[in-house]
Amino acid sequence: MSQDSLDNLNNRLKQFAQARDWEQFHSPKNLTMAMIAECAELVEHFQWMTEEQSMNLSADKHQQVAMEMADILIYLIRCAERLDIDLVDAAERKIAINEARYPAEKVRGDARRADEYD
Amino acid sequence: MSQDSLDNLNNRLKQFAQARDWEQFHSPKNLTMAMIAECAELVEHFQWMTEEQSMNLSADKHQQVAMEMADILIYLIRCAERLDIDLVDAAERKIAINEARYPAEKVRGDARRADEYD
Amino acid sequence: MSQDSLDNLNNRLKQFAQARDWEQFHSPKNLTMAMIAECAELVEHFQWMTEEQSMNLSADKHQQVAMEMADILIYLIRCAERLDIDLVDAAERKIAINEARYPAEKVRGDARRADEYD
Amino acid sequence: MSQDSLDNLNNRLKQFAQARDWEQFHSPKNLTMAMIAECAELVEHFQWMTEEQSMNLSADKHQQVAMEMADILIYLIRCAERLDIDLVDAAERKIAINEARYPAEKVRGDARRADEYD
Repeated sequence: MSQDSLDNLNNRLKQFAQARDWEQFHSPKNLTMAMIAECAELVEHFQWMTEEQSMNLSADKHQQVAMEMADILIYLIRCAERLDIDLVDAAERKIAINEARYPAEKVRGDARRADEYD
Repeated sequence: MSQDSLDNLNNRLKQFAQARDWEQFHSPKNLTMAMIAECAELVEHFQWMTEEQSMNLSADKHQQVAMEMADILIYLIRCAERLDIDLVDAAERKIAINEARYPAEKVRGDARRADEYD
Repeated sequence: MSQDSLDNLNNRLKQFAQARDWEQFHSPKNLTMAMIAECAELVEHFQWMTEEQSMNLSADKHQQVAMEMADILIYLIRCAERLDIDLVDAAERKIAINEARYPAEKVRGDARRADEYD
Repeated sequence: MSQDSLDNLNNRLKQFAQARDWEQFHSPKNLTMAMIAECAELVEHFQWMTEEQSMNLSADKHQQVAMEMADILIYLIRCAERLDIDLVDAAERKIAINEARYPAEKVRGDARRADEYD
């Protein structure tokens, strides 16, 4: 039976933190700070690029970007573990909410935020 | 045969964006901005809490936090799709790098950043 | 007649950008990305600290933190210049709004957000 | 004799926090979280805009953006006050560093980060 990839990562990250006695630092408050710091490192790669350039990264830049995205996923998984949140279940519920909030026929081609619609 | 949860989410999100003709807005540059905006909404929940309080959320707050984390995962998956990045593979490679950079016996109980070690 | 410190910084930053032909990159969209990236570098200094530790920085850390805060102010001034926004006037108006939203006698010692009050 | 606008804002914000007994929440750690949350609200306004659109805001959007920038300045001033950092002095020192790191004749029209130059 295959095991889910997120579960595998979660277990490995939990062991990593425990082996280093780092769980004492991993409060949800602190983990969200670490997560947004990693997210900003991702943003930084794109800040002076055009949108077009952001879709056509060099091999080297692509590699760096992949590692920043990995960091975000890592802290997201850690934070979910500490709060006992099932990320996949939460994402499925949020997608269902978005499907109801943004009916395809109403918002097609329009990126305004939901609260800007009447 | 079971299919991986991240793959399932990715497919569903891709269809969601295509049905709304929103892929035109989903450049990696734009998606990283959306991702960090969601990440900040998560941070906002914790900004005036103590670390202790952040570990003991009310049921209502827990639910809101789960939805913010879902948003981050959603944009992370969308951004990875647009850049053709395998998130799980990237995370596994990054964890291996971290295991080498932070040997357990050297950093136990110490949260300083790698570049602050001599 | 004394001239205002923010005006002086604004003029110097404008000349800095023009001398390097960097105004082409300084769209408000891009400048907000640069600003949040700098803000995250500030957050990163504090992510594993206790609140107590964050109030008692070493001289070296204090210096680094001051430079990160300088970066945020620099991008804030640049962004305001590009959008023709008077930062001081905006701040004064926002403080007046906050004074009305959060009457001292109602919110004393309570950090909940305005929209959480009934 | 005129008094500096940042000093005026700092005094007013300090009184605002003290009158509400909010200084107990205003550790530098917490204030950086609040600051990045406000910064993300600014980013959110621009995430689906083109760069061109970000330079041509409607009157209503311009007003909202000014209020988000005010929030960032407010938390920046609060954080500097708590850490006893002179923002203007820090910005002047940082600009001098940038002038040395990015000589105009070397970087003209090129937005790569300093560490990407050889």
